Amino acid sequence: MSNEHWFKSHMREIPQDDCLELLQGQHVGRIVFTDDTGPLALPVNFSIERGTVLVATSPYGSIAKYATTGPVAFEVDESDEYTESGWSVLIRGTASVVPHSDLRDFHEEPPYSWPEGTRSLVLRITPLEVSGRRLLGA
Amino acid sequence: MSNEHWFKSHMREIPQDDCLELLQGQHVGRIVFTDDTGPLALPVNFSIERGTVLVATSPYGSIAKYATTGPVAFEVDESDEYTESGWSVLIRGTASVVPHSDLRDFHEEPPYSWPEGTRSLVLRITPLEVSGRRLLGA
Repeated sequence: MSNEHWFKSHMREIPQDDCLELLQGQHVGRIVFTDDTGPLALPVNFSIERGTVLVATSPYGSIAKYATTGPVAFEVDESDEYTESGWSVLIRGTASVVPHSDLRDFHEEPPYSWPEGTRSLVLRITPLEVSGRRLLGA
Repeated sequence: MSNEHWFKSHMREIPQDDCLELLQGQHVGRIVFTDDTGPLALPVNFSIERGTVLVATSPYGSIAKYATTGPVAFEVDESDEYTESGWSVLIRGTASVVPHSDLRDFHEEPPYSWPEGTRSLVLRITPLEVSGRRLLGA
């Protein structure tokens, strides 16, 4: 057996319950959807509310146009190149437009968005499947 | 006009030529593809060789099974939560299996992979479209 085994990093599943908790402290994730060309991922600011992902986006962009018409995913990860370690969480489900009255009724905050401009459309990604992996450092 | 304009971050396009250069210093990106459920993104180690993206993966995983049968994307980003700034690059194209003899012929290095295990399958993502955005801090 090669010694490589002792130096390379090890992969572990993250329990499903821990996945959404990991996302609480994060500000940037990637919404994954399909447009006329194929699948793509775009970084967005988000928040976790009642077990769902809220994303604020422009009502005129490609996310608004394409993400609500088919299955989507939401991916968040962190990595450390010095220890060659990290984790990632993948949520798969569907996205729908949230009426602002719903945010009010459920006392949910629309996610804080870093870029300027009108990100007045709030999408809710409802998970059908949540999984995560942790890569332990060497 | 609201003062918000002065405090929120500004978005700029990254010239196409600068996009691949930005990726040279990075070790982790996300391959975006479609399986039987829909689009998804998984973090992978990668390298840039002759204007293409090389990804090393397991011959038995979902990337090997699904990424070579349809359009794919490759996304890399960096963000700084204190300045609320960052950048992202999105490559869209197709992925194909690289015979190891090709790597040898072109003196290309298979990408160095952090996780343990056999990542003996090398995929090459050939860009059809490269775009990038930079979010300038406030």
